[in-house]
Amino acid sequence: MTDTTYMKLALQLASATNGQTNPNPMVGAVVVKNGEIVGVGAHLRAGEAHAEVHALQMAGEKAQGATLYVTLEPCNHFGKTPPCTEQIIQSGIARVVIATQDNNPLVAGSGIKKLQEASIMVETGLLAEEATQLNNIFFHTIQHKKPYVTLKTAMSLDGKIASTTGESKWITGSQARMDVHQYRHQHDAILVGVNTIIADNPSLTTRLPNGGKNPIRIILDTHLRTPLSAKVLHDNAAPTWLVTGARVSEEQIRQYESYASILSMPTERISVPNLLQVLYEQGISSLFVEGGSQIHASFIESHMYNQLVIYMSGHLIGGQQAPTFFGGTGFSLQDAPKLYIASVEQMGDDIKLIARRKEENYVYRHY
Amino acid sequence: MTDTTYMKLALQLASATNGQTNPNPMVGAVVVKNGEIVGVGAHLRAGEAHAEVHALQMAGEKAQGATLYVTLEPCNHFGKTPPCTEQIIQSGIARVVIATQDNNPLVAGSGIKKLQEASIMVETGLLAEEATQLNNIFFHTIQHKKPYVTLKTAMSLDGKIASTTGESKWITGSQARMDVHQYRHQHDAILVGVNTIIADNPSLTTRLPNGGKNPIRIILDTHLRTPLSAKVLHDNAAPTWLVTGARVSEEQIRQYESYASILSMPTERISVPNLLQVLYEQGISSLFVEGGSQIHASFIESHMYNQLVIYMSGHLIGGQQAPTFFGGTGFSLQDAPKLYIASVEQMGDDIKLIARRKEENYVYRHY
Amino acid sequence: MTDTTYMKLALQLASATNGQTNPNPMVGAVVVKNGEIVGVGAHLRAGEAHAEVHALQMAGEKAQGATLYVTLEPCNHFGKTPPCTEQIIQSGIARVVIATQDNNPLVAGSGIKKLQEASIMVETGLLAEEATQLNNIFFHTIQHKKPYVTLKTAMSLDGKIASTTGESKWITGSQARMDVHQYRHQHDAILVGVNTIIADNPSLTTRLPNGGKNPIRIILDTHLRTPLSAKVLHDNAAPTWLVTGARVSEEQIRQYESYASILSMPTERISVPNLLQVLYEQGISSLFVEGGSQIHASFIESHMYNQLVIYMSGHLIGGQQAPTFFGGTGFSLQDAPKLYIASVEQMGDDIKLIARRKEENYVYRHY
Amino acid sequence: MTDTTYMKLALQLASATNGQTNPNPMVGAVVVKNGEIVGVGAHLRAGEAHAEVHALQMAGEKAQGATLYVTLEPCNHFGKTPPCTEQIIQSGIARVVIATQDNNPLVAGSGIKKLQEASIMVETGLLAEEATQLNNIFFHTIQHKKPYVTLKTAMSLDGKIASTTGESKWITGSQARMDVHQYRHQHDAILVGVNTIIADNPSLTTRLPNGGKNPIRIILDTHLRTPLSAKVLHDNAAPTWLVTGARVSEEQIRQYESYASILSMPTERISVPNLLQVLYEQGISSLFVEGGSQIHASFIESHMYNQLVIYMSGHLIGGQQAPTFFGGTGFSLQDAPKLYIASVEQMGDDIKLIARRKEENYVYRHY
Ligand SMILES: [Zn+2]
Ligand SMILES: [Zn+2]
Ligand SMILES: [Zn+2]
Ligand SMILES: [Zn+2]
Repeated sequence: MTDTTYMKLALQLASATNGQTNPNPMVGAVVVKNGEIVGVGAHLRAGEAHAEVHALQMAGEKAQGATLYVTLEPCNHFGKTPPCTEQIIQSGIARVVIATQDNNPLVAGSGIKKLQEASIMVETGLLAEEATQLNNIFFHTIQHKKPYVTLKTAMSLDGKIASTTGESKWITGSQARMDVHQYRHQHDAILVGVNTIIADNPSLTTRLPNGGKNPIRIILDTHLRTPLSAKVLHDNAAPTWLVTGARVSEEQIRQYESYASILSMPTERISVPNLLQVLYEQGISSLFVEGGSQIHASFIESHMYNQLVIYMSGHLIGGQQAPTFFGGTGFSLQDAPKLYIASVEQMGDDIKLIARRKEENYVYRHY
Repeated sequence: MTDTTYMKLALQLASATNGQTNPNPMVGAVVVKNGEIVGVGAHLRAGEAHAEVHALQMAGEKAQGATLYVTLEPCNHFGKTPPCTEQIIQSGIARVVIATQDNNPLVAGSGIKKLQEASIMVETGLLAEEATQLNNIFFHTIQHKKPYVTLKTAMSLDGKIASTTGESKWITGSQARMDVHQYRHQHDAILVGVNTIIADNPSLTTRLPNGGKNPIRIILDTHLRTPLSAKVLHDNAAPTWLVTGARVSEEQIRQYESYASILSMPTERISVPNLLQVLYEQGISSLFVEGGSQIHASFIESHMYNQLVIYMSGHLIGGQQAPTFFGGTGFSLQDAPKLYIASVEQMGDDIKLIARRKEENYVYRHY
Repeated sequence: MTDTTYMKLALQLASATNGQTNPNPMVGAVVVKNGEIVGVGAHLRAGEAHAEVHALQMAGEKAQGATLYVTLEPCNHFGKTPPCTEQIIQSGIARVVIATQDNNPLVAGSGIKKLQEASIMVETGLLAEEATQLNNIFFHTIQHKKPYVTLKTAMSLDGKIASTTGESKWITGSQARMDVHQYRHQHDAILVGVNTIIADNPSLTTRLPNGGKNPIRIILDTHLRTPLSAKVLHDNAAPTWLVTGARVSEEQIRQYESYASILSMPTERISVPNLLQVLYEQGISSLFVEGGSQIHASFIESHMYNQLVIYMSGHLIGGQQAPTFFGGTGFSLQDAPKLYIASVEQMGDDIKLIARRKEENYVYRHY
Repeated sequence: MTDTTYMKLALQLASATNGQTNPNPMVGAVVVKNGEIVGVGAHLRAGEAHAEVHALQMAGEKAQGATLYVTLEPCNHFGKTPPCTEQIIQSGIARVVIATQDNNPLVAGSGIKKLQEASIMVETGLLAEEATQLNNIFFHTIQHKKPYVTLKTAMSLDGKIASTTGESKWITGSQARMDVHQYRHQHDAILVGVNTIIADNPSLTTRLPNGGKNPIRIILDTHLRTPLSAKVLHDNAAPTWLVTGARVSEEQIRQYESYASILSMPTERISVPNLLQVLYEQGISSLFVEGGSQIHASFIESHMYNQLVIYMSGHLIGGQQAPTFFGGTGFSLQDAPKLYIASVEQMGDDIKLIARRKEENYVYRHY
């Protein structure tokens, strides 16, 4: 077995935890002694043990003189758990192989330095690209101090999300639907407009064969029109946050207080940039926007999004007035942003397209 | 070399003539004697020699006792050229291997029968699927007695073909543009609405690095509003046909007569089914529709199309009023047709989608 | 995430331990609750905790009501560790998904039965083929009560393993060499003939970049001619076993007793079938034979082998008398066994061929 | 269509004639005017029309102003046919696109020069690598003035070509056998030793489903021991040449004169380099050696071969004395040539290996 083989296993362990570690990154670890694996671990949930700790626990005394493979630089500060660097040093580990440095300013090389001062041999950069890709959202959040925003839509072959009369329902198949639930599971929060709540009364939860984490439900509701009978207010499946404009009265708010948190924005209309800042401060790293035509327009026109996920069915709906996913006022051709199409995938009868803003690239190769 | 190897060469010869044989099918032929190729040929242009004749000419006396591989059943009737069956019989060919039978009622097995009566060994069905796929349009036309219709559009990631203010220009890259010219070369006729002529004054010709055949240019012009100065009336690059409704006066028509053919439809508004019947009678087998929102709507809403070719760029244009390729009144969700997505292809920065009606399948395997 | 996703992770964990679990099978386990992974584990070494135990330990109280994914039926008997079934039941696990049943007669369905009696939902057969393939050697051993035998050779393009004058050295490149060390790491024992010891005085250890397990070294030495100065007798890198025929005196044996174990066979010449039975009784599940022409002949002519690994370089050595890897008396063409070539792989400048006896197939799909 | 598309068709036409054009190269040609193919052709047999001539004949008057695509520089000398350059110039062709220059000193750029002097636009180098690969043998022959030599063998997994008792028969399957006949079809001559004639009395002809060209049959027969009843002397399927050493009497030779050509070599034992020189002078460009152990040894030990084709079955034959394909005295390890393994291919149950001498590379890219 080579270093690469062991780091790949650590990456497989990390990526298996996608969706359950937020706001923390996914991290995997493997301990190897004399060519034998003596411990494996992953960070499973924020507030609980880090990947290294699980792997060292499994290794026990065999950690003495062994090599630790870990996909992210070990932490060196007291957070919800003591610093991993301390535990690595005490375990007697002789060599640490790290895929990618942590760009969190609280770590950023200090973990590596600490280990080296304890005479542990440290190597970094092995499979760094894969490791960074894996935690793209995490790295984005740290750097930009706002959540990573994914806009999601399902449309017909001719770009329609509903018919002229406003009829709208799932036009894509079961595979695409399952894929959406996977995204919900992996995001801290889901965002919809109040009109979706009024029209469909959805629960916005994650429904996967083996369960899944429900995201926080965020409703953009400038005038506080969410029906008091809405499912999201009463099902206790996950927190619900209502985001309002400045013109909403105390009295109005009081009606909802037992069922939801109210985020009152300081301006009459909700500003997406302000909203994202507030959400970040509330600990939201990743936001999944299942918007209609207007919600998407407000994110796209303010350039406040990172990627688009488009499910496209083979239907032809047509109709001059039938809506598309990006309504609003739109752009002139000259100002229209051009995304790069990162992937196209067959999904049952449908197509799934992922498009990203070109500047989204947090891969750290050598440092 | 096996029979399959030779038939593949015949198919390669046939498919290389895509676009130049209409209204005839593409056909390739190879003559083999004692394991050596002694003649190759393809049908190059309607009215000229058939594939078999070219191959037999190259073979000369060596055709005696040889095997002829041909991708379509040899013709058995006097058309613009004498029947190939006669020439095959006279050449002394001992065995004929045919990929696919001709469903043209003028042939339809009679060619095979004629050869067999002359004691030639005949085998059919080798690589039949490839051979039928190759001449999909031809087989469609014969069977349905109307042209094979391809609708073409280029749209943004959000389904827009122009901005809210009506601005429209090529948003896809040079590869997609070249691909469109390839389609023009391969079609008998191209169709646009009069508004395209008024707005852009296009020439609608084929511009490929090595030239290419210009399609007949058909303008849907109900009220005969094509400017008398339009390029398509004066460039002599290809015939131009103006299709009008019934309410157009003799006098109006007279103005255009020197520059274009006028097809006056019997109804006030142009009926697409009627139009296709007329075009078929005029010898049009394949029609390439580069329509806008309304033209496409009239074909889709009357279910008069066979496939859609969609070029999709990474742009986000948006705007509630900005048009999509299929306007009109549209369908209710229940009535919306569902096409199958036959292929998705990366084309430079863009994506090319081909979607077909599910009933389009003219593959004859065994007969 | 689906059941399949989690089982794949369990299989990745299992296969990462290849070579370190003998005579036990490789096993991986994952515990999942509400769509989140709460524990991962693998069986790391015979005598230590089973995969399930590691995974349940990491899960702690979260195992209550969770699903356990495990690549092999949990054990139900007291071995070196208490039965896993007991610990699964006590942990409160609600559902167990198993890839493949254990054909070990000590388990063979009784683990599943025990779990079901405790009202745990049990499903078997998910990714069964992959899981069985992974433990091919283990399943073979259990069923046939003899080690799984791999014959290894390196030869020139013309089948030679040495020149006419008997010169022999590595003709394959570094990648092939590394591959051999990987095999040594994964096998319980390596076997060579005494002539190899006399000629080359090899250490027969595993030399991989990250260390590796040294196999037990078995020398076929009918007349006890191993030099007393041989490396394998003095380096303490791994046990060394000398296998002798019946004609070796007590006195001879006494000379070696401090340095090696002596296996005296009851017949004058060593019988391969007898040897394999003895090795199996000594706990050897997998035997890697790096023989010369005669050693391989004795395994092949007695049909006592499971697969061949052949490294082939681009050299042409030639020479009527130059040896090939299978010498002996050989077979008549009619009696020559025909293996199936399971894989061919480019390995640097060389080719690696794996050929297996056709009856080697222990894949249990449905049961 | 692009230049590349047309040149690919020309290459397909050329490669379809593999085996029938010797000693001439394979050449294909396509004539294109205004984006339409107006002529196709291939060189079919030495002494007959060149590819360009066939394609120009099909094009007729349409050649005027057209582009000619041809895989090899047009000839400029009177051979068995008048120079193609003349005919191209007279046809009115405006542009010539050439894949690869002819390294035949009789052409070597003079064809290009002649065309340019006639004001024809000439471009060279398009798909040059494919075009050169196609005529590898031809280019080799021209450059080295000896035939291109392919050694062919079929062996067991352990390198044996017969059992200890000398039994030998086809051990590979029908696909491999068919592949051998394909090689026979494509070679000018096949070579075996007299022992093969005595033992098996083979016909050495090409047996393919659609016939095929029989190679000239060359028997290495130092002492003229070919039985007078041998099939190759009486079947008239192809010429048979007996190659003898110097010690053969006139009288002996006279017995064979009516049935075979006798090539008496000036030395007692046949020297392979001398033989190849003689064969080249007799017009043999490609030689397919289906030798036994000794014949192959004489080619390999004198380094007079270009490639090896090895069919390998899954059998294990064994036996110290059983022969391998390269017998003779062989090389010391230091002197053993190392070929590069150009391809490995599954062929039914068997494996086909092609290995080449490293210096064999006649690809001319830019010139
Ligand atoms: Zn940590
Ligand atoms: Zn015809
Ligand atoms: Zn257990
Ligand atoms: Zn020529």
